[in-house]
Amino acid sequence: MVERRLAAILAADVAGYSRLVGADEEGTIARLSSHRRILIDPKIKQHHGRIVKTTGDGMLIEFASAVDAVRCAAEIQRAMVDRNASVPEEKRITLRTGINVGDIIVEGDDILGDGVNVAARLEALAQPGGVCISGTVYDYIRDKLPLPFTDQGEQTVKNIARPVRVYGLSAEAVASLPETPTSVDALSPPERRWDQLSSL
Amino acid sequence: MVERRLAAILAADVAGYSRLVGADEEGTIARLSSHRRILIDPKIKQHHGRIVKTTGDGMLIEFASAVDAVRCAAEIQRAMVDRNASVPEEKRITLRTGINVGDIIVEGDDILGDGVNVAARLEALAQPGGVCISGTVYDYIRDKLPLPFTDQGEQTVKNIARPVRVYGLSAEAVASLPETPTSVDALSPPERRWDQLSSL
Repeated sequence: MVERRLAAILAADVAGYSRLVGADEEGTIARLSSHRRILIDPKIKQHHGRIVKTTGDGMLIEFASAVDAVRCAAEIQRAMVDRNASVPEEKRITLRTGINVGDIIVEGDDILGDGVNVAARLEALAQPGGVCISGTVYDYIRDKLPLPFTDQGEQTVKNIARPVRVYGLSAEAVASLPETPTSVDALSPPERRWDQLSSL
Repeated sequence: MVERRLAAILAADVAGYSRLVGADEEGTIARLSSHRRILIDPKIKQHHGRIVKTTGDGMLIEFASAVDAVRCAAEIQRAMVDRNASVPEEKRITLRTGINVGDIIVEGDDILGDGVNVAARLEALAQPGGVCISGTVYDYIRDKLPLPFTDQGEQTVKNIARPVRVYGLSAEAVASLPETPTSVDALSPPERRWDQLSSL
């Protein structure tokens, strides 16, 4: 019997990773490793995500909640702005993030199915520094997280039968969000933090 | 911090329960109890559902997968047709079922939030003997379960801010489904069983 579960899938990768590695292999890998250790992995943990797999510059993360997944992506992208502020532009590591919710197929620790593939396609559509989500995800978060996502219409993506409704949070919109603490210990409850955004 | 998770919520109740109890209190309660013991509870278990709470004639059940929740409801309704076949019409127990997917709030064993409330509203919209699902649920199952749900448009439901897209599986459509075994032990893998429906 096939095991299924509803999950929010966050796919992330580094924009122009091959170019960065080509220009500075050791430096790029060390910087990405540092972002992961200090920012990304703690944020994933804080929002109850599970890293399903990583490639050189890619990550696939599973969340039980769409709200948690979008919070996590937005907070990581916002914090990356600060982490990149003092880095020369040609050395900056900038992430693209895509989120979908699917009734996915579970095989051991791995997850499979259309719902996962769509997340990867959304990531490819995301602006570097931004967050791209499906219409399904948007429906779950629209009344819960005051983030200025914009409707980018229905888009046809590779190897997916139906067009996907796409909503994007631009890098500019991310940079305008209030700062969020990057250390898990320093965090106030997320509900309170995001409520503060409502006043924007 | 609020705990959230994506879940499929199945709300079920007995159509005309007060009338049935008024006409035959002990008989109605005994029949419902028998349906639960022999059919409903085993089906919920088989499809990995969790009974969150029960009222006199109502049940709220949580599933990790939308596909599992709809399979469970359709199989219960199909089996009820056979169980009612030899019962005089005025004594028949007929269920209404509604299913929604939500990014729900979890408090201990209880579940809360709009996602749960919508499931209860969908149940009230369901035809006795039928299954009513939200557009969100339909999107998860449309390519996975060959069940003849029909689009019933956007409907405004009590105390829910946005209209809900509603899809219904009528009692007539349920009765036309192939029989499914009611004993858990006798079941072949669900993937295979529902694949057989594709040939309809």
